[in-house]
Amino acid sequence: MKIKKFKNKSFNSTKSIHSNCGVFGVYNNPDASVLTYYGLHALQHRGQEAAGIVSCEPEHKGIKSKFNIHKDLGLVLSVFADDKILTDVLKGTSAIGHTRYSTTGSGDNKNNIQPFKVNYKDGNLALSHNGNLTNTNFLRNKLQNEGTIFQTTTDSELILHLIAKSREEDIVNKLLDSFSQVTGAFSICILTDDKLFAVRDPHGVRPFCFGKVDNSFVFSSETCALDIINAEYIREVNPGELIMIDRESVTTGKEKSFRISEVGQYKHCIFEYIYFSRPDSTVFGEKVDKVRRKIGKNLALESPPPVKDNEEEKKIGVINVPDSSNTATLGYFNEAVKTNKDIKHEIGLIRSHYVGRTFIQPGKDKRKMKVKTKFNTVKGVINNRKIVVVDDSIVRGTTSKLLVELIKKAEPKEIHLKVTSPPIISPCYYGMDFPSAEELIANQHDSNVEGIREELGVTSLFYLSTEKLLDSVPYSDPKTGYCTACFTRDYPIQIEGLEKMKKEQFDD
Amino acid sequence: MKIKKFKNKSFNSTKSIHSNCGVFGVYNNPDASVLTYYGLHALQHRGQEAAGIVSCEPEHKGIKSKFNIHKDLGLVLSVFADDKILTDVLKGTSAIGHTRYSTTGSGDNKNNIQPFKVNYKDGNLALSHNGNLTNTNFLRNKLQNEGTIFQTTTDSELILHLIAKSREEDIVNKLLDSFSQVTGAFSICILTDDKLFAVRDPHGVRPFCFGKVDNSFVFSSETCALDIINAEYIREVNPGELIMIDRESVTTGKEKSFRISEVGQYKHCIFEYIYFSRPDSTVFGEKVDKVRRKIGKNLALESPPPVKDNEEEKKIGVINVPDSSNTATLGYFNEAVKTNKDIKHEIGLIRSHYVGRTFIQPGKDKRKMKVKTKFNTVKGVINNRKIVVVDDSIVRGTTSKLLVELIKKAEPKEIHLKVTSPPIISPCYYGMDFPSAEELIANQHDSNVEGIREELGVTSLFYLSTEKLLDSVPYSDPKTGYCTACFTRDYPIQIEGLEKMKKEQFDD
Amino acid sequence: MKIKKFKNKSFNSTKSIHSNCGVFGVYNNPDASVLTYYGLHALQHRGQEAAGIVSCEPEHKGIKSKFNIHKDLGLVLSVFADDKILTDVLKGTSAIGHTRYSTTGSGDNKNNIQPFKVNYKDGNLALSHNGNLTNTNFLRNKLQNEGTIFQTTTDSELILHLIAKSREEDIVNKLLDSFSQVTGAFSICILTDDKLFAVRDPHGVRPFCFGKVDNSFVFSSETCALDIINAEYIREVNPGELIMIDRESVTTGKEKSFRISEVGQYKHCIFEYIYFSRPDSTVFGEKVDKVRRKIGKNLALESPPPVKDNEEEKKIGVINVPDSSNTATLGYFNEAVKTNKDIKHEIGLIRSHYVGRTFIQPGKDKRKMKVKTKFNTVKGVINNRKIVVVDDSIVRGTTSKLLVELIKKAEPKEIHLKVTSPPIISPCYYGMDFPSAEELIANQHDSNVEGIREELGVTSLFYLSTEKLLDSVPYSDPKTGYCTACFTRDYPIQIEGLEKMKKEQFDD
Amino acid sequence: MKIKKFKNKSFNSTKSIHSNCGVFGVYNNPDASVLTYYGLHALQHRGQEAAGIVSCEPEHKGIKSKFNIHKDLGLVLSVFADDKILTDVLKGTSAIGHTRYSTTGSGDNKNNIQPFKVNYKDGNLALSHNGNLTNTNFLRNKLQNEGTIFQTTTDSELILHLIAKSREEDIVNKLLDSFSQVTGAFSICILTDDKLFAVRDPHGVRPFCFGKVDNSFVFSSETCALDIINAEYIREVNPGELIMIDRESVTTGKEKSFRISEVGQYKHCIFEYIYFSRPDSTVFGEKVDKVRRKIGKNLALESPPPVKDNEEEKKIGVINVPDSSNTATLGYFNEAVKTNKDIKHEIGLIRSHYVGRTFIQPGKDKRKMKVKTKFNTVKGVINNRKIVVVDDSIVRGTTSKLLVELIKKAEPKEIHLKVTSPPIISPCYYGMDFPSAEELIANQHDSNVEGIREELGVTSLFYLSTEKLLDSVPYSDPKTGYCTACFTRDYPIQIEGLEKMKKEQFDD
Repeated sequence: MKIKKFKNKSFNSTKSIHSNCGVFGVYNNPDASVLTYYGLHALQHRGQEAAGIVSCEPEHKGIKSKFNIHKDLGLVLSVFADDKILTDVLKGTSAIGHTRYSTTGSGDNKNNIQPFKVNYKDGNLALSHNGNLTNTNFLRNKLQNEGTIFQTTTDSELILHLIAKSREEDIVNKLLDSFSQVTGAFSICILTDDKLFAVRDPHGVRPFCFGKVDNSFVFSSETCALDIINAEYIREVNPGELIMIDRESVTTGKEKSFRISEVGQYKHCIFEYIYFSRPDSTVFGEKVDKVRRKIGKNLALESPPPVKDNEEEKKIGVINVPDSSNTATLGYFNEAVKTNKDIKHEIGLIRSHYVGRTFIQPGKDKRKMKVKTKFNTVKGVINNRKIVVVDDSIVRGTTSKLLVELIKKAEPKEIHLKVTSPPIISPCYYGMDFPSAEELIANQHDSNVEGIREELGVTSLFYLSTEKLLDSVPYSDPKTGYCTACFTRDYPIQIEGLEKMKKEQFDD
Repeated sequence: MKIKKFKNKSFNSTKSIHSNCGVFGVYNNPDASVLTYYGLHALQHRGQEAAGIVSCEPEHKGIKSKFNIHKDLGLVLSVFADDKILTDVLKGTSAIGHTRYSTTGSGDNKNNIQPFKVNYKDGNLALSHNGNLTNTNFLRNKLQNEGTIFQTTTDSELILHLIAKSREEDIVNKLLDSFSQVTGAFSICILTDDKLFAVRDPHGVRPFCFGKVDNSFVFSSETCALDIINAEYIREVNPGELIMIDRESVTTGKEKSFRISEVGQYKHCIFEYIYFSRPDSTVFGEKVDKVRRKIGKNLALESPPPVKDNEEEKKIGVINVPDSSNTATLGYFNEAVKTNKDIKHEIGLIRSHYVGRTFIQPGKDKRKMKVKTKFNTVKGVINNRKIVVVDDSIVRGTTSKLLVELIKKAEPKEIHLKVTSPPIISPCYYGMDFPSAEELIANQHDSNVEGIREELGVTSLFYLSTEKLLDSVPYSDPKTGYCTACFTRDYPIQIEGLEKMKKEQFDD
Repeated sequence: MKIKKFKNKSFNSTKSIHSNCGVFGVYNNPDASVLTYYGLHALQHRGQEAAGIVSCEPEHKGIKSKFNIHKDLGLVLSVFADDKILTDVLKGTSAIGHTRYSTTGSGDNKNNIQPFKVNYKDGNLALSHNGNLTNTNFLRNKLQNEGTIFQTTTDSELILHLIAKSREEDIVNKLLDSFSQVTGAFSICILTDDKLFAVRDPHGVRPFCFGKVDNSFVFSSETCALDIINAEYIREVNPGELIMIDRESVTTGKEKSFRISEVGQYKHCIFEYIYFSRPDSTVFGEKVDKVRRKIGKNLALESPPPVKDNEEEKKIGVINVPDSSNTATLGYFNEAVKTNKDIKHEIGLIRSHYVGRTFIQPGKDKRKMKVKTKFNTVKGVINNRKIVVVDDSIVRGTTSKLLVELIKKAEPKEIHLKVTSPPIISPCYYGMDFPSAEELIANQHDSNVEGIREELGVTSLFYLSTEKLLDSVPYSDPKTGYCTACFTRDYPIQIEGLEKMKKEQFDD
Repeated sequence: MKIKKFKNKSFNSTKSIHSNCGVFGVYNNPDASVLTYYGLHALQHRGQEAAGIVSCEPEHKGIKSKFNIHKDLGLVLSVFADDKILTDVLKGTSAIGHTRYSTTGSGDNKNNIQPFKVNYKDGNLALSHNGNLTNTNFLRNKLQNEGTIFQTTTDSELILHLIAKSREEDIVNKLLDSFSQVTGAFSICILTDDKLFAVRDPHGVRPFCFGKVDNSFVFSSETCALDIINAEYIREVNPGELIMIDRESVTTGKEKSFRISEVGQYKHCIFEYIYFSRPDSTVFGEKVDKVRRKIGKNLALESPPPVKDNEEEKKIGVINVPDSSNTATLGYFNEAVKTNKDIKHEIGLIRSHYVGRTFIQPGKDKRKMKVKTKFNTVKGVINNRKIVVVDDSIVRGTTSKLLVELIKKAEPKEIHLKVTSPPIISPCYYGMDFPSAEELIANQHDSNVEGIREELGVTSLFYLSTEKLLDSVPYSDPKTGYCTACFTRDYPIQIEGLEKMKKEQFDD
């Protein structure tokens, strides 16, 4: 069956505003908020639009604790520019943090910045969430009909209401009760007056890891945030697992584990390996840089570089798009050079260090300007030469077009664009900030690669196949699987209203 | 019975953070937020710690509207320093605003800044509140036990939950249902997607007025905010009344009136006349400046100025504390001069225009510095002369002591301090930001005026009697009465836990 | 000769940007910059557009000192909002400060904010200037031709160049040499590495006083800044005097005095008494409040209030425009009431405390908005009654028109406007920020009071005569005289280019 | 002769505060300041402490122009965060910009931010300077003795004074006269009311290029700033050349060239090739990336990587320090792999994109924190393996020590550190921000490489020889030469006081 163009403009209602984000939590450390600050710094690539920390200060007299909060729009560096916020305001021995990356439009809504901090019957509660719930409308309607008011437009707020409304006695059962009602993708830190929880959806869509430093417990979206604070990586927060850290954990050195669901099929987001996670992190049980090199290798096997036309011709330059395709390009080159001595790994694009990651800046116009100021070509490397450019993905095509335009000014003989992912034809409903189907260039072209090639204006264009992509990632466990919906439209977790809409789209 | 010292340190729990504040609302005006901005400006004296506006923009397509919000710590002038906020962000044809004045400590909590804006089953909801609820703990416990989460520490948030949870069908009944559950003092504006409501507690503790400008409807804490936008004063929002303005009101030019309770005894805050309201406002049906002059007159009758010891002596200077006692001093002087030609009205204290109202700045140290920089004496007026200083009230005594110290540097012969209110011996639980009983100087001295006089260091000290105070205010309606609890400890509206505590304090 | 309309549009070139300002200096105090901060606070009414402080920190090792500086646009309160600037940045034992009030347009130029701080052959030099030089063009051309570069557009910078270029050996002679070259109005503080100087023009146009607190020496534009820091007023800085404070002064407790010119005729700015100086200050050797009351008294003698038409009529209300005419109104009322028992002193205008002084805010539109939000009427006082309004001056007429408009909304029977100054018909070239002649309403009407009355829309209008104004000010010294040029066009100090222009205007 | 330790602590007086910086200028473009903004963005790596732009707006009537200025501490992105500054404030058709990088301590002095803008006899003048003058004290003393005042502590201000004081008639001769008096390193843009000048010192120490876009003329420190605005590279501003662009240039399309000195020996800063310039720039007539690869190649020839101990051992990992050694590492690897198949190019260090360039952040403590948050290791690449790290230089050693510490946590078998420059043993007096000699690790160890190796804690340490470094750079012109003083203490341009001091140090 040929996959047809997918129109989902009217389908935005279920899409909540927080998309890929970074979460972090620490328990039992006198510098809890400072560690969280560094952790958020390491997770900055997962969201540079807003950042926040909630710390918990155990009260000297009573049982209950004092929760402190600071959050704002901006990079971690600027939100916490005043050192005193960490030392004087965010006092306490446990803390959770969040770094946010939102879709266009709602991005400026200060109310939606996480962590959220509320008060309920049993005390304080704070929450940081990475991922996206998929039964938001159902839950929101249900809660509203019960007389609930909402102060944000996020799905994360729903969880807080579920917890507060749960009729279970203790907090663990309240959480198990609450998470049994939500579907979708979530890696969540929850801070209470005396405990820290980490919970991950049954499919393990987003990464989530658990570590320790001295006698402190740490949770983080990626392991790179453990490294920055010299924490030891212990293990993943397992899909479907709820981990509790309390006073007893400090004594025993052990976390307590609960299950929010039976063990099911894992559906890790394969795009975390392609682009989102940092190469120095371990996610889904494997080092990202290793997977990314394998991806590059497989790309070389599927689509090797061209050869020289004659002896006089300069060697073919294999260039990376810094820094997102650095590792994959190395993998591509090392494999390709085995059979093709005509190629040379070159630095053909220079990136300015003073502007952020393209993918991450919401708003179309801003993205355009960033690309203009972000890269420059090394003309001597590109000029009058065949060039292989290894890039990680093509979403709207806007960035790629600007990049190709830029490279062409340096007058290469040919541009061969090799992409380390299959064509992206469908939006993500599990937390990745892809645009609507209609904005995706591969969907616009009905996955017709030749049409895309022509639009981008390159000599050749090759996308890694889904098969080779899956071959690049670890399959150690029979339960382990991946979500590839953005390439295949095969959505593993049910999404409200999607079936009905797909029916309308594809059954005619 | 001698009134004994009153200790209420442990009684802070029921005291919520917003105290005297200004509220404002406008319906059916293309410049709704600009009018609100000016209105808040005129109400700035009711709270200079934070300010905010929520505007409602009727959507072009659907039924529901878009709510816009901007609020922050600071004066109205600085919160809306960027003009574009009013024109580009706060678009819409209706709006409500709030200017806040909070007690020490919680003042910095940005979460507590009003108006509050939430979303519930039937759409958007925003609220501005002046006053204080007195069954907060009861309601909060009840709501928490039903699984409600709280994002602020204010009593105002409770009202939003009650509305959302009401099982009544339409909004009017939801409001009547909700307000039947709360006790205390409240003048509240509520904005929905297509209506504006004003509601006032059955006792009419805080002022609240209703006006019109062209075809627009306006609510405001005081009439001075009607004046600034050239609106016409129509009438009070009556105690126990709920006024609704909707599309139909625009056509008919009429508001719709409902009652949240039967008509009972009015208990207007008499301190609004003494100090809080602006002299150019009409509150509780009477011009403030008129009442304040009567108060001055009565003070002169009770405690006339001294006479000269001999012919050579300079005339006795009657001086006001600018600007809070200006009007009362005029009343005092005009009465006193009838029988004592030895006196002269003088300007003996100069006030800097670049610092705010003493009473209003939270934090003890800040208050001290403000006084130092706020007044200066006119030495030629004070030096070597008997001085009568008319002041409005003595709370902690800190400000008065600094003022006396300042005046003494100009070396008067005598200082006679006349106060236009009785001794303040008990906190306010209805929205006035008085400190705890233990901090009140008159309570510390068991209302022993001689002791207070000695502590302040003045030649003589006189407080207006409660009888003469009540004689100064209008009594046109048999239902009309006043709350004088801060002078008498006679709290007209029940306060949670107060009875029990009073019992412990006074029955031994 | 009838004084004709005066056109000076093309005459702006000689008018430098800093106009009336406040200067302050302190020597030998561990908290020099804190005292200066308070001093500037007290002088805030002399300029609310920008503020700055330079402090001098004697170096531990060498002879030379370290100069620290902080200045910015805004009120003193906001420029030094961060306390640490005073304690951590502006360290030292001597300091000078400046608060600025500039004409429209150049007001935003940050470069022009004082104090200026430079380095020259003999070390550091900082300067604060109140007044206006009148041979600016001559000096600027001369200096430019010698190869001097200018970093500001102020006349004050010229003085620094003159000092640095002086061929005299020691600093005193350099200063005497420099000030012998400038004409105009100036009250200046100069700070060097080890000395503090105060210098005032030979005519003493602007006020300047000298005081002491403990063993510290203080200079200030007005005495109210001595009061705020509890300093003792010693004497005026005399016209034509240069006072030096150095290490030896600390030992002897004595200042050293030099003369920059022979003793000539004093030409104090009479407008300082009418409006600019604070009533609690002593300037030109007399208490401002005393002079201002005498002005009010003389106004009452020249133009008493009306009488009642019949017995039933309410007493005529005499109202002040707060706070600028408070003192004069008291003087007016006390004199008038002697012969007219039909009048009553009333508070008919209420002023908001959260906006600045009208006169002081540059930019026409801003001024308009400020008036709208600044005053409100007390309707009960004004309604259906004859009103006498005592105001200090009418410049453009804009403010007066808005005020009259406002009062009329309260529907008085009549408005009698009494002005405590003669008609302002000519600009000030000595530091007062009056607009060009063409903008002055009295000049527009060729001093025809009836025409002005009609334009303002009042029942009657009366300006104090120049004779009675002069009768109100002290004449203790035969040398003492006043500049009344703004009322008489009689400019006592020569102004570049003025003669030529006047010739063109008046000789035809 | 053995080069002994060099103590220059007392020698700081001649060192002025601006060090390596970026300059930019554009003439005849309606978006002059926007182009400058983008140009500064591309030059951000040359100074991230402060940024500024002066634009020139030709007046509609007269001959003279209006100069506008905006400058502040911070990155280009934040200084011009408000778009309106570029469009509404910095209007005009010509502009110059500056991005600053200063030494510790003086960095916070706002006065020193460039461009400087002044007014002198012939009109406006603005200046941006990269480099360092070496006869600063002589000039400053001379100027001060002539009565000049200084508002900054920079050497750049001296040039403005020289121009204004020159007795030459026209601006070109004034400039030739002025630059004949200064020695040292300078690449300078000067803007006048109707002309733009570029001038470079006779030795061409700092880079400076000239380009065109449409009919506009552009000057820039590096060619990467031409690329960002799509300007065409025309040629270098030649050493000793003064280029003038005026109205006539616009017509003819030609610049006008003058000489400030006879053609002498070029002394290009070789460190621009090693570290400072961007790899995509062309400086001193050669592509930086080409030179940097040659440097890497030569390093490999001098110091090849180790071989495997046995077959089982993993391949030796050659890793770059991102991004400063990326290009050189590629050159090193490509050469080394020819003879050693045991090596593999790896990405072993990941750099965060949200913090700036280490070298560039003044203040020791800040530098330390930046390194901690800037890099992370890819553990799988480093663990249990021999590692060759190619780095560009070792200055204090602080950064290198932290880096080695970080790598060691990933537990490599060996760390071989290869440095693409010789040991830095002596400060730069021509504009590079090296610390004093005593802080240089190589100077501390008397260039004893074994001692440094031990201190850093690496298996082996190798510095590129000066000979091989010189072999890597272009020698196309006999006049072309390089300054290598930081490696050799052979200072090609005379420095005030240096000889005397060197004598004291080395002749004993």
